[in-house]
Amino acid sequence: MTSAPDATPPAEPARRRRRDPDTHRAAILEAAREAFAERGYARATIRDIARRAGVTHGLVMRHFTSKERLFLCAVPGTRDIDEVVAGDLASLPERVAGAFVARMETNAADDPFVALVRSAASDERAAIDLYTAMQRRSVAAYRTVLDGDDVDVRVDLMAAQLTGVAFNRYIVRAGPLASMTAAELTTHLSRVLRRIMFD
Amino acid sequence: MTSAPDATPPAEPARRRRRDPDTHRAAILEAAREAFAERGYARATIRDIARRAGVTHGLVMRHFTSKERLFLCAVPGTRDIDEVVAGDLASLPERVAGAFVARMETNAADDPFVALVRSAASDERAAIDLYTAMQRRSVAAYRTVLDGDDVDVRVDLMAAQLTGVAFNRYIVRAGPLASMTAAELTTHLSRVLRRIMFD
Repeated sequence: MTSAPDATPPAEPARRRRRDPDTHRAAILEAAREAFAERGYARATIRDIARRAGVTHGLVMRHFTSKERLFLCAVPGTRDIDEVVAGDLASLPERVAGAFVARMETNAADDPFVALVRSAASDERAAIDLYTAMQRRSVAAYRTVLDGDDVDVRVDLMAAQLTGVAFNRYIVRAGPLASMTAAELTTHLSRVLRRIMFD
Repeated sequence: MTSAPDATPPAEPARRRRRDPDTHRAAILEAAREAFAERGYARATIRDIARRAGVTHGLVMRHFTSKERLFLCAVPGTRDIDEVVAGDLASLPERVAGAFVARMETNAADDPFVALVRSAASDERAAIDLYTAMQRRSVAAYRTVLDGDDVDVRVDLMAAQLTGVAFNRYIVRAGPLASMTAAELTTHLSRVLRRIMFD
C-alpha cells in the first residue's frame, strides 16, 4: 500500500512510479478495497481512492474507466470467478465454496462484498445496480460450464446462499455459521452448493 | 387498523375498546408491523406504535412487555414457526417454503423481516440481537422434529438461504429470484430447503 505523497515529492520516486503501471494498478486496487469497505459503494469516490493510492484521479480513470469497473476488479470474488469456474465440473462446488470462504476470511471485517450488501440493504441505487451486475457476470461465467434452462435460477439460488451466509457470519456474527471454523464452513457450503448446482 | 383517537373521544367506543383485549392486540400488532417496516427495528418506538394503534403506551407494554417481544409476535414468520414445523416431516420443506413466500408476498414492500435485515445490515445492535433471537427460536422449533448433532447448523444454513432470497427478491429486486412467480419460488425454495434439511 502506497502512502499519500508528500507535499513536495522527490522527482525520482514519481518517475519510477510512472514507469511501473502494475505497481500503480495494485496500489489503486488496494486503496479501492479499503475505501469501498470503509465507506460503502455509493459513498466511496474515485478522488478518495486516488488520494489513498497516491496517484491522480486521471490515472485511476485511465486504468479502470469507471467506479463500477474498479469495484468489479477490486472485489476478489468477482475478479476470480472465471478462474474458479474453469476446471473439473465435479469439484466446482468445493472450488466456489473454498474461494468464497478464503476471500471472506482474509479480508474479514473490511470485505467490499459485505460493504456492498450493507449499501444495497440501505437501498442505495448504485449498490443495487452493482450487485445486479455482479450476478449477471456470475451467470455468464457459470453458463460456460453448466447446462440447462434454469442455470440462471440455480446461480441466483447459490448467490442467495452465499449472501445469506455472509450476512450471518460477517454482519450478524452470531450462530453456528459465525462460530464454526473456515474449514467447517467450506465443507457445509460445498454440500449445499453442490445440491443447488446439480440437482 | 384503528385510526388515531379524536381529541375528545366519545366515552362509548373507549369503553367498548377496553372490553375487547383481542381487538386491542390486533390493532397493536398491525401498528407494530407498519412501524417496524417503515422505521426499522431500532428506530421504531413503543410510543409511536401505541399512537398508531390508538391506545396508550402502558397498554402496549401490558400486552407485550417489551419491544423485542412485540416484534417477535408481530412478524408472521416467527409467530407461526411452531405451527409450520408441527406436522408431517416429509412435507416440512414445502410448508416452510410456502409459509415464507406467502408471508413475504402478502406484506410485499413493508415486511418487518426485510426491515430487520436492513437494520441489521446497518450494524444496528438491537436489530442484530433480535435477528439472533429469531434464529435461536427457529432452532428450538426445528429441534422438536429434526434429529442430529448438526440441527443448529442446518437451521442456520436454511436461514441463510431465506435471508439471501429475501435480499435478492425484496431488496435488490432483480434477477430470476425476483422475477419468477410466487409458485415457482416456492418450488425452487422447497427443493433447496429439502436438501439442507435432510441430506
